[in-house]
Amino acid sequence: MKEVIYPGKEIVNGTVTTPKGFVASGIHTGVKEEGQLDLVILFSEKEAAAAGVFTQNLAMAAPVIISKEMIKNHHLRGIIINSGNANACTGSRGMEDAKKIQEATAKALNIKKDDLALASTGVIGVPLPMDIILKGIPVAVEQLSKEGGKDAAEGIMTTDTINKEIAVEIEVDGKTVTLAGMAKGSGMIHPNMATMLGFITTDADVEAEYLQEILQEVTESTFNMITVDGDTSTNDTVFVLANGMAENMTINASHPDRKLFKMALKQVSEHLAKSIVRDGEGASKFIEAEAVGFPTLQDARIAARTVLSSNLVKTAIFGGDGNWGRMICSLGYSGAPFNMDTIALTLGNGTSETIKVLDKGLPLDYDEAAVEKLFEDKYIRIIIEANNGPASAKGWGCDLTYDYVKINGSYRS
Amino acid sequence: MKEVIYPGKEIVNGTVTTPKGFVASGIHTGVKEEGQLDLVILFSEKEAAAAGVFTQNLAMAAPVIISKEMIKNHHLRGIIINSGNANACTGSRGMEDAKKIQEATAKALNIKKDDLALASTGVIGVPLPMDIILKGIPVAVEQLSKEGGKDAAEGIMTTDTINKEIAVEIEVDGKTVTLAGMAKGSGMIHPNMATMLGFITTDADVEAEYLQEILQEVTESTFNMITVDGDTSTNDTVFVLANGMAENMTINASHPDRKLFKMALKQVSEHLAKSIVRDGEGASKFIEAEAVGFPTLQDARIAARTVLSSNLVKTAIFGGDGNWGRMICSLGYSGAPFNMDTIALTLGNGTSETIKVLDKGLPLDYDEAAVEKLFEDKYIRIIIEANNGPASAKGWGCDLTYDYVKINGSYRS
Repeated sequence: MKEVIYPGKEIVNGTVTTPKGFVASGIHTGVKEEGQLDLVILFSEKEAAAAGVFTQNLAMAAPVIISKEMIKNHHLRGIIINSGNANACTGSRGMEDAKKIQEATAKALNIKKDDLALASTGVIGVPLPMDIILKGIPVAVEQLSKEGGKDAAEGIMTTDTINKEIAVEIEVDGKTVTLAGMAKGSGMIHPNMATMLGFITTDADVEAEYLQEILQEVTESTFNMITVDGDTSTNDTVFVLANGMAENMTINASHPDRKLFKMALKQVSEHLAKSIVRDGEGASKFIEAEAVGFPTLQDARIAARTVLSSNLVKTAIFGGDGNWGRMICSLGYSGAPFNMDTIALTLGNGTSETIKVLDKGLPLDYDEAAVEKLFEDKYIRIIIEANNGPASAKGWGCDLTYDYVKINGSYRS
Repeated sequence: MKEVIYPGKEIVNGTVTTPKGFVASGIHTGVKEEGQLDLVILFSEKEAAAAGVFTQNLAMAAPVIISKEMIKNHHLRGIIINSGNANACTGSRGMEDAKKIQEATAKALNIKKDDLALASTGVIGVPLPMDIILKGIPVAVEQLSKEGGKDAAEGIMTTDTINKEIAVEIEVDGKTVTLAGMAKGSGMIHPNMATMLGFITTDADVEAEYLQEILQEVTESTFNMITVDGDTSTNDTVFVLANGMAENMTINASHPDRKLFKMALKQVSEHLAKSIVRDGEGASKFIEAEAVGFPTLQDARIAARTVLSSNLVKTAIFGGDGNWGRMICSLGYSGAPFNMDTIALTLGNGTSETIKVLDKGLPLDYDEAAVEKLFEDKYIRIIIEANNGPASAKGWGCDLTYDYVKINGSYRS
């Protein structure tokens, strides 16, 4: 199976402040435990074209409701993010609190409140500790700096064990354009934009409507193709801010380099999405599922996601068992159309080695011990060939382990 | 919340052979490990009206494909069931094997092959050990007896830790009518008829088409309202055989006692469905979710099922944590329509004590320690009030534990 070659040159130690004109900060206010960073501001020196995709959960959190409104203006200067408390299921008080934070931060930044979006992540159903947060805001504003990217990436974490960042460079109109991103999320991760928090910055000049269009398209094949536990959260959001400071010609639907830019946006998104899965709560193995030869892209995506979401598949892989029966079983209830007589299944790992276990719906006479050996790796691949159409899709997930149960049997999120 | 009072008088130690005219056997052939019963025949002395509901999994097993055909005739004499091997994903060879079993068993029973249905459960993708099974068939036929009900219930088990049986009596037209059932299933349990194997026998005289109609209706609110791990299996089936030996007047859509009979069928089905959940793989707690005040029955059912299926809710309950934020979050992505401003949530356990934690979408000032105490029980109740319509539904599930991961990380199913 050929891998996509992405165009962006990865920048060592790149952060969301690597693109021109972006500063950030991450401080500890006390919402989270001792010393942990929990309040983050991401800020652009110039007004940025802005795009966002939001959770489809009906129990949408207050900051999501507000940010959805803000993004309709297609431009932003910054975003304030707190971790440790989701401000979800907090009713009218939650809305008032979110508005107060927006106003206080906008004032401290000397911008209009409509130029500031919000995001929150953490425990559901507990009112925000407003005094602590309001005290923290001026501190976070004061600490905004070009070096603040790492603190920002750390400050948005909850049960995450590592921060998730990337920055890449491409050339557009002879100018160097940088795209960067940070994300959080290790549980409550499941498709339907509703996956996690993601913040992408770029100094590219991009038309806002076009930016929204390609963000949605890219999200479908990246953030929406990961699953950790099948739960779609109340708060998840991906933002892109494009401040134009690279001084390229505005990227729009007719710019000659639009595809290059979209690929770089996908590169950043896919990197962040995969990082989230790698850091899945209690995960010991990273799983890539590829669904090939389905009637529509939608079918291929649902096939890959359903196999990745099956607790039985996830526990089998945790146990190092190439139990393809469970994979076919989950495919069978996915809703993706296929014919048992044409289905094929191939297992693989992080090496180029693969073993085909099923062809034309029938088990092949493969070496079970070789599959066990293959599955000792931390990187597991499942390739489903439906031979039932032209569409293919990839998705990513992780195994279900004792540690997942441990983390979620005790952490209050 | 008021409990339904069921009409049937439960018969102590009742089995599928308690209704008149039914015999059964369960023997060890060697498909399962040493000594475990793995081949079962259930047989009616007289031709029985027959109804069945089947998995909707596209990777349907060979015995399911054949049984779906047989049930179209609306009558059966018996069913042969093997455990330890699902005969699923076994292609044309699996179909041939299933047909051979059907023919050999019909011959040994001296009935037409079309009067015999089949069911299999166990590992997927491995051909049946036909020599062992074919040798076992005459033995199983020979051992058919009125006392064989318990062996039958044991012989259909896989990872089940207890056998699941019930028999109840009602009076129809002044005649004593008995209904009984046995079921297996402790993993791969999830709605969409596709839950488990269930076999219901009754000596009632019932019109076959009416029997099919009420079985489907009853299944929707019983077997289809349980979930263990969200996986819909390749083999699951519920059969009802009604042989008429109670000599009541034929129950049909205009019989005065039709509702009584339907309630008794529901009683048997609900008992079996709940038994499956209680024996859910690795389960330590039984969870009942009640969704009240949704626009449609469909909405209420999907709401209850989605909350019960959430890994985050399941692990929280394993941890004894009344984490209602996760319950509302899962409700939010269920697809059931509700308004955050009118939602209420109440937690309870096996006692009559309940604690309301959320009202009109807002957290109440309840005693967290009291909820923890409530959740120490093995029986957990979640009551969701949407205040958004007339429809209510109940569903049942279990927690997600270390043992679930252990069982499914090692058992090849």
